[in-house]
Order: sequence, then structure tokens, then C-alpha cells
Amino acid sequence: MTGHASVENKAAAPGNFNDYLEQTCIARQTNLCVGLDPDVARLRALAGVPDMPPPRLCLEAMFQAAAAAEPFAAAFKPNAAFFEAVETDEPLMARVGHHLAEKHTSVIRLADAKRGDIGNTSARYAEATFQGQAFQSITVNPLMGHDAVEPFLRDPARGVFLLCLTSNPGADDFLLQNELYLRIAEKAAAWNTNHNVGLVVGATRPEYLGRVREIAPDLPLLIPGVGAQGGSLAETVEAIGGRENRRFLINASRAVLYPADATWANYTEQVAAAARSLRDEINACVQ
Amino acid sequence: MTGHASVENKAAAPGNFNDYLEQTCIARQTNLCVGLDPDVARLRALAGVPDMPPPRLCLEAMFQAAAAAEPFAAAFKPNAAFFEAVETDEPLMARVGHHLAEKHTSVIRLADAKRGDIGNTSARYAEATFQGQAFQSITVNPLMGHDAVEPFLRDPARGVFLLCLTSNPGADDFLLQNELYLRIAEKAAAWNTNHNVGLVVGATRPEYLGRVREIAPDLPLLIPGVGAQGGSLAETVEAIGGRENRRFLINASRAVLYPADATWANYTEQVAAAARSLRDEINACVQ
Repeated sequence: MTGHASVENKAAAPGNFNDYLEQTCIARQTNLCVGLDPDVARLRALAGVPDMPPPRLCLEAMFQAAAAAEPFAAAFKPNAAFFEAVETDEPLMARVGHHLAEKHTSVIRLADAKRGDIGNTSARYAEATFQGQAFQSITVNPLMGHDAVEPFLRDPARGVFLLCLTSNPGADDFLLQNELYLRIAEKAAAWNTNHNVGLVVGATRPEYLGRVREIAPDLPLLIPGVGAQGGSLAETVEAIGGRENRRFLINASRAVLYPADATWANYTEQVAAAARSLRDEINACVQ
Repeated sequence: MTGHASVENKAAAPGNFNDYLEQTCIARQTNLCVGLDPDVARLRALAGVPDMPPPRLCLEAMFQAAAAAEPFAAAFKPNAAFFEAVETDEPLMARVGHHLAEKHTSVIRLADAKRGDIGNTSARYAEATFQGQAFQSITVNPLMGHDAVEPFLRDPARGVFLLCLTSNPGADDFLLQNELYLRIAEKAAAWNTNHNVGLVVGATRPEYLGRVREIAPDLPLLIPGVGAQGGSLAETVEAIGGRENRRFLINASRAVLYPADATWANYTEQVAAAARSLRDEINACVQ
């Protein structure tokens, strides 16, 4: 129906991002995306945390979290804002992207950057993210339309998740007015000629997800909003037909990175346990 | 009518960004915003350009352009994409922001970053731009709604230009559908309680600008699209009532930074001439 590639294609040439994402989720039996959002205050609150300058602490904690979560993660998603806010001369997003590219090759690298500008400018962001920072995919804000999105789509191996229906309260202001989110989904499906367009849809609004999936069944969904933001995992997986269509990623950031009982001494164990538990919950929903 | 502050307030306490912008434009008799978008290929094409690594060349050229254009500019607007695309370990946007803050205190510093994310994440972008990079104002993508915009608005002295009707062809895909751009203008006017919200509207679509100005007369307009993108200056200034309301910035990037006859030896002269000429053209329209 939706032309999904089978797991057997895994070893084939890189191909397109959307097939690659599905193959990754099936082969690794996980749809979990771990958001790598370093929060200095929360990290410093971990008992026994070493006294490091913020940039070091952020990188060290995210590297440890990635190593701990790797067996359970289909994707790692660092959010650019959390790295840009750390005062340092180091290009932290590039450090993270290259570290993941080197150490965690089987996990999809997704830059949560929400970029988007006129065509010739979006091309610079694409270059920065895909070449400079070594990411395989990015979140893009589609408000400015096709020429703002197109530069990110040129390489079929690079994935582009367009904001469609976000998990925050502000989605009511524009995205849910006049069914803008459905128009975005329609345009996204039309722009998917290289099989590398996906959509960001929030778990906080499962009642709207079915129509998005119907309009764009081939497009992977990146789904934040489970966990700290309060979305229901079971309802969400049900709404997107997750049993039949494994093209989706459920993102968790705070729930994995800052488990309630974590200390610095048990940090990797706690992160691994949180990631494993969430992966298992997702898998229980798709069985 | 619109509560514009008079020039006499110039020396008063910092106050709010929108009054400050108007005072700057009137006091300095210019509505020109110079986009500082370094393009390594174009800079290298200047006859006699010294052999510098790209990051050095970009900074050097932008610093020279800023010094040359200063007498004619109300604002300097570096676009983050052009700096993020340069491969370097240096945080170039921060270098530029701090340089402008130190050398060109009378010119408004505007980071063209088009950021926007859920509330707690937007707060990080605001911190990065206003504190880390020393900018006074930023362009923000409002697609995700109020909580994505609000963290940028907390300090009345920092200005926030929301994308409303952009100058690119893609504006047809979403912004011009169901009058989304007017809804953005309405929301922006409602969110302007700190007097620091502005709008980005393209000069390529003057026929739509009158209604935006009517809905939100107090909001400064940042207007790209004159010059390389083909918008008409006279029609634009007419459409926004520029004679009566000086709350606007006309942006030019390529037209100022890459004049046809520029060489490295005459670069500052050529940039100054281009900036002066555009400022004069704008002033002729508002007279």
C-alpha cells in the first residue's frame, strides 16, 4: 500500500531517508527517539556531579546518555536551542553531531533546529546541518513555503521533518486554525518526491493525528509530547495506526535524560532503564 | 494616533524597543537596514581580495561593510544561516553581535534567525541571541503560536519581528492562504503589551501591506525584498504610509554588500555609496 521497503533491503545502498527510517525501526525493534537536550541546572542537581564548566558538562552528560540509550533508540535528537544557549566558543551542535556519527552509526541523527528561510538562505542552513554538523535529518519550519523547504530536500538520504501540529498550547493560534496543519500535511506529501519528508505531530492532540496519517501515510511522523508534556502513548500509537505502519518516532527528552532517582554515579544505568522502559511501552502498543 | 514617541525622548531611559526604533529612524534620518550576509564565493570574487580563510574573510568583510554603512543605517541585520554555514570552530554570530555592540552603538542590532520552538526551548534561543550574542532584536517564526513567541518578548528593550508575509514565492503556500498573514498581524498586535513586537512583510507584495499596517499601526515593519528580490520601494513606502509612520526598516543585503563595481581596494567606498544611495531613495519616498 504505502510502498514500505522490507527489512531485507537494510544492506542495500543508502537509498532514501524514509525507507531508511522504517528499516531502522523494524531492524532495531524500536521507535524511540531520544531528545538530547542538555539542561545545566538539572545536570548540576544530580548528586555527585563533577565540577565541570557548563559546555563540558553538557557534552559529557549527553555523550553518556547516548551511550546508555543506544540499544533502545532508533534516533537521537539534539535540540539546537539547548546547545546554542550554553556560553562557549565551541560549536556544540557540531561536536554532538560528529560524536554521534562516529560512535552510534546505527542510530538516526536528527537535528531539532526548526530552521526555514528564503531559498538561498535555507540552503545555508541545510549545508550547516548536513555537512558542518553531520546530521542525517532536521526539523524544518514550513511557514515560508516550498522554496524555504526545498533546499533541505535535495539529497534523498537526508530527512526533513516539517512542523505540522506541534505539541504546545500555541498550536491553537495558527496550526489548528482553518486546518492549516492539514494543508501542511498535504503539501508535505506533494513535496515528498525524494521520499525524505516527514512531519512533526504532537502526542498531546491524538484526536487530530488520524487525518494527518491518512493524508500522508508514507511520511514518517516525529511525535513529541509524550511524558513531560502529558500526551498518551497508547492513544497516539492507535491514532496513527502504529501497528501497521512503523514509520514513526516517539520522542522523549526530559523523561529519559533526567530520571527521578538519577545521581551522577548511576546516571547511565538510570538513563538506560528509562529508555528501555519507554521503548518497551511503545513496542507493547504496536504488538 | 499611534502613540509614537517623539525624538525628544531619545535620551530617556532605554524604554521599549518599538519607541527606540522609531526614535533611531527619526534621529538618524534613515530607515535603512543593512543585511550582513557574508557569501564567501562573492567575497572571493572581489578583485584583489586577500587570501584569508573563510571565517576571517567573512568577519573582516562584514566589519568593513558595517563601518562603511554605519552613517546611513538604522539597523544591521546579520542572517544566522550565512554564519552557521561557514566551517569554523568560532561562534561567528556572537563575534558579529559583540563587534556591533562595541563599535556601532547607535545602530540597532537585529539577528535574523527566524527561531521559534515550544516555550521552554524558545527561552533558550532568546538567551542565546540576546545575552550570548548581544543582539537587541531578532526575527521569530510565529507558526507554533504564543508560547513559542512569548519568551522573546519578556524584556521590553528587546525587539521581536514575527514573520508575517515573507518576500519569497513560497508565501503563497501558507501565509496567503485563508489570510493567515492577517491573523498573524492581529495576534502580533495583541501580543504587543511590552511594545516590542514587529512584523516581517515583503516588499514583493505591496498590495497586501496596507491591511497589515491598518491592523497593527504601532508595530515596526521589517521589509525585505527590495533590490535583488525585485520589490518596488516607492509602492512599498506608499502602501505602509511611510510618510506618516516611520516605524519601518527597509532591508537590503546583496545590493549593499556586493555592488557591481566593487573590488577589495574600493570595497568600503562602494558599500558606503550603495548604502547612501538606498537611504536617500527611501528618504525621497517619505518626504
